Amino acid sequence: MTRTRLLFAGADEYLATFVEAARTLPEIELLPYEPGLDLKGIDYLLMWRPVPGLAAALPDLKAVFCFGAGVERLLVNPDLPAHVPIVRMVEPGLTQVMTEYILWQTLRHHRRIWELEEAQAEGRWAPHWYPAAWDRPIGILGLGELGQAAARKLLDFDFPLRGWSRHRKDLAGVQSFAGAAELPDFLRGLQILICLLPLTPETTGILRAEHFALLAPAASLINAGRGGHLVEADLLPALDSGQLQAASLDVFSREPLPPDHPFWRHPRIFMTPHNASDTNPASGLREISRQISRHRSGLPLEHVADRQRGY
Amino acid sequence: MTRTRLLFAGADEYLATFVEAARTLPEIELLPYEPGLDLKGIDYLLMWRPVPGLAAALPDLKAVFCFGAGVERLLVNPDLPAHVPIVRMVEPGLTQVMTEYILWQTLRHHRRIWELEEAQAEGRWAPHWYPAAWDRPIGILGLGELGQAAARKLLDFDFPLRGWSRHRKDLAGVQSFAGAAELPDFLRGLQILICLLPLTPETTGILRAEHFALLAPAASLINAGRGGHLVEADLLPALDSGQLQAASLDVFSREPLPPDHPFWRHPRIFMTPHNASDTNPASGLREISRQISRHRSGLPLEHVADRQRGY
Repeated sequence: MTRTRLLFAGADEYLATFVEAARTLPEIELLPYEPGLDLKGIDYLLMWRPVPGLAAALPDLKAVFCFGAGVERLLVNPDLPAHVPIVRMVEPGLTQVMTEYILWQTLRHHRRIWELEEAQAEGRWAPHWYPAAWDRPIGILGLGELGQAAARKLLDFDFPLRGWSRHRKDLAGVQSFAGAAELPDFLRGLQILICLLPLTPETTGILRAEHFALLAPAASLINAGRGGHLVEADLLPALDSGQLQAASLDVFSREPLPPDHPFWRHPRIFMTPHNASDTNPASGLREISRQISRHRSGLPLEHVADRQRGY
Repeated sequence: MTRTRLLFAGADEYLATFVEAARTLPEIELLPYEPGLDLKGIDYLLMWRPVPGLAAALPDLKAVFCFGAGVERLLVNPDLPAHVPIVRMVEPGLTQVMTEYILWQTLRHHRRIWELEEAQAEGRWAPHWYPAAWDRPIGILGLGELGQAAARKLLDFDFPLRGWSRHRKDLAGVQSFAGAAELPDFLRGLQILICLLPLTPETTGILRAEHFALLAPAASLINAGRGGHLVEADLLPALDSGQLQAASLDVFSREPLPPDHPFWRHPRIFMTPHNASDTNPASGLREISRQISRHRSGLPLEHVADRQRGY
């Protein structure tokens, strides 16, 4: 068997676990990028943060695998030749952990867990009331791989569910809204709004005051898309006014978020450090290996980003 | 239509919402208990905390509906004539919210959410690692209505699942263990242990040091059964030694737990005030109404507690 050389770049914090996982895949030779490496004969690149000049310096590059589901940084990388396909990461491990994050955050807001935490800190026995899941409409912005997986789990918990995407989707149990014109009807009266969109010019800043105003009073926001989806200046006023009761944020306009940013210590902002979901080393590499073997046998790659569409 | 009089007692904190919900059920006349009430002609009683002398003073009592799933307090109530069936509460609202609690707590322990919360409090950007769900064996003590519902949801998240009960159960995807002899094999190596047992002489104190010692190192405990399942004196040493990494407790030996109890302020004990699950007023009363109409037409009541078995 010919081993495929897969160059690994721009994700140093994940290197050790991926090298370890690659040991179980004899068909893949995982090659950590380092300056001075001979780049000839390397067909495939796995990259997260673009390494300046790297893609342009690979004479035999046939495809780039993005380390995550969101490819917006690779799409604007000037080094990447237009003919080289960029593959979004779609693998069961990534989907699984994102679904965990969405359910855990949704239950946090549904059950107003902060009230129980505050009561515990004060040694106060204070059972509290919350509506039934079936009385709590939830909306998901983005019905791709991750949005659909989250929708299935939320439906299992009997939440009434709406979804919004570029084109209408036919998903059992999900009321589907499409395009800018239907966004207000999608948002109106939602108690929990979840963002799992790709970042494109159309979706940048979609989480903003005028849209918060359409939600139910004291709604909750969960952003696991990209920092650029949220107009950060609109969040604190919405929390202060009670328009939003709380927000869970995994992504930020600057990452790492500077330590003096007011989000860190706000009692109703629940932050995770872009850690909602990660590609699983084992299942992620198996998926790349599957795609490479399809590609080598002449079949088209799957989940290729559309440069025009932006994801 | 003859309206059925249902006496409501021992759950004053829920009275208002149940009176409200009963308005939508014309076949039920909800009668709040108060001293001096004429008790003749009352066939059915809905009770949570036993009201001393009440059951014995109802000359026409045909059945008692327990307000919750756990009937241990009603079973030892000397007022209740042995021929009067005690019905455990099994209704979709109660099951639903218990399942929410179990999933939310499981995800808390699976993802070690406290690490993220501590990092946020310190303004520290600290992505962290956690195993895949499929590498995290979970065990449920008790595979009744609530245990089975929780099992189905946990299986959807790909956790390897074991269950322990009095008799072996045949549940797809759940490795079933039965009886005292198989308890050690059930416990061995579990990373998260969930208790949803009824409280009986056999299950009292089942959450204790010798059983914690069989779990994986740094395992998690979730107790939504009864306070009597946990040997409370064994919990702090297990947390201090690292045998347990954390515990979620909804139930306690004394409720409300006294404000000076050391559990309140332990950083790895996540407390809720016997609030994991409540009977939903609307769906709970609909279930009682359904049972009463079966009973009136000569059919047996369902979910009747077995006084011998203890639940």
